[in-house]
Amino acid sequence: MFPRVLFSGTCRLPEFNSMDLAVDVIDSPARMRELSDTFREAAPPLGLVPTMGALHEGHLSLIRRAVSECASAVVSIFVNPAQFGPGEDLDTYPHTFEKDLEVCREEGVSAVYAPSVGQMYAKGFDTWVEVPSLASGLCGPCRPGHFRGVATVVAKLFSACKPDRAYFGEKDYQQLVLIRRMARDLDMGVEIVSCPTVREKDGVAMSSRNVNLRREERENSRSLSRGLFRARELLGEGEARAAVLIQAAREELTKACVEIDYVEVVDSETLAPLETVQGSCRMVMAAKIGATRLIDNISLVP
Amino acid sequence: MFPRVLFSGTCRLPEFNSMDLAVDVIDSPARMRELSDTFREAAPPLGLVPTMGALHEGHLSLIRRAVSECASAVVSIFVNPAQFGPGEDLDTYPHTFEKDLEVCREEGVSAVYAPSVGQMYAKGFDTWVEVPSLASGLCGPCRPGHFRGVATVVAKLFSACKPDRAYFGEKDYQQLVLIRRMARDLDMGVEIVSCPTVREKDGVAMSSRNVNLRREERENSRSLSRGLFRARELLGEGEARAAVLIQAAREELTKACVEIDYVEVVDSETLAPLETVQGSCRMVMAAKIGATRLIDNISLVP
Repeated sequence: MFPRVLFSGTCRLPEFNSMDLAVDVIDSPARMRELSDTFREAAPPLGLVPTMGALHEGHLSLIRRAVSECASAVVSIFVNPAQFGPGEDLDTYPHTFEKDLEVCREEGVSAVYAPSVGQMYAKGFDTWVEVPSLASGLCGPCRPGHFRGVATVVAKLFSACKPDRAYFGEKDYQQLVLIRRMARDLDMGVEIVSCPTVREKDGVAMSSRNVNLRREERENSRSLSRGLFRARELLGEGEARAAVLIQAAREELTKACVEIDYVEVVDSETLAPLETVQGSCRMVMAAKIGATRLIDNISLVP
Repeated sequence: MFPRVLFSGTCRLPEFNSMDLAVDVIDSPARMRELSDTFREAAPPLGLVPTMGALHEGHLSLIRRAVSECASAVVSIFVNPAQFGPGEDLDTYPHTFEKDLEVCREEGVSAVYAPSVGQMYAKGFDTWVEVPSLASGLCGPCRPGHFRGVATVVAKLFSACKPDRAYFGEKDYQQLVLIRRMARDLDMGVEIVSCPTVREKDGVAMSSRNVNLRREERENSRSLSRGLFRARELLGEGEARAAVLIQAAREELTKACVEIDYVEVVDSETLAPLETVQGSCRMVMAAKIGATRLIDNISLVP
């Protein structure tokens, strides 16, 4: 029923010339469910890498890990309107679909799931997944409805793709923690695999939104990672008070004339703010540079 | 890994003496997922009948249909605290677990999924599924949080049991419509099968809560179905105005000194109130009799 897909699943064999093959694109949940069953029955595990396209090295690290660890790897490409608020950058979010498909093909992805907005949000759509305690802080107040949109679309992607494992980047840390909680709470049986943030040579975290930065803004965006590294440096020197570390990070942002949304030190699992670096925790931040909102975070190990 | 279960799956063979076998009880989502995979790989479809136990003839009609239509049928038994509000009857909800198991065994159910409250709602649980537009009317205002609890637990049961079909009674009509919408919206790939309300000889809809009615209350509870039948009778005589049908039904309830919560004529899919009986619609009602809240509904065909 899916000859092109099953064929493209063999791309990973090194003797096979994958350049001759296209990766198959599935656009309906029903067909995706059927194909997922085929993949899982042929050989588990099935890995899923949910993306909004505009693939960069960060996504590539997730895709490569999924392809290497799983018998089949599906990449979903869907720019999810439900996670963009009014006035956010849905319209300017970069689209590079053909290039993304080429990347997936080259990496030996088994299938690409790329439903249309109409397929995902049919007339009368009104079912929402929420994780209030993890959505309320950090990016929550600034982006009302964002995490409801994220949790809902990921629940839908999990229903259609039925993955054994799903790969998420640590770059979107609040999202990662929230999805992990959702998968656990709703008994989804999906192992959430987190992958380290991939950075440009100058420290800037890879993000599809970076292409929207002008030259000067791109320069100023370095202040986010500089702030995080500075905080970690201070921690290494023995400073465990969150307020001091936060102040040091904020100074880097302020120097670069960046509009700070928040800088916090939080528990890695609950995202509760901490006064002292202890146990497993992270420094997380969001800032606006011109019209572009960027986030970044780093692990703080006491 | 599940010898007793796989064995009990053979109960439906007529030459097999099912009296010798116990039905296996699964208490963890992870084990249920494994077993569901086994069932579905052996032979689809897999049917699920979600219940809160205290099984009566209404449940039996669902179970029998699932067993007859599906290669494997799972019955879940879980009294879900999340769908009971403060002051509701969680503590007095009837429990007849051993008897329920016996019924499932006799009916040839493949497995019973009966997780504990701790398994279903682990520490830190905070993920909720909501269908606001279908939860806001009818029983919604009177039972805040109820449908959120229902949608969430059913999403969890679907994740663990992975049914191809799930069987729900028309008795809980708002729940049925809401679950159908959830399954569609979240791409769950579960066909929601609705089964007609089973009634006592005197017309009263079967409900686990009926056992809580005292003799006089039980007598008064007949007014619900009497009201519905009266409305349908009037419709048959050519009266299509919802207000007139509702008034006739309310009179039956009032005569029996029943405390009316609502009586409405609504669209069968959207649950939007209608002024005239047209297309596919239903009369739905809720009333309190002593400490017991009862609901009932009927299809109105113009």
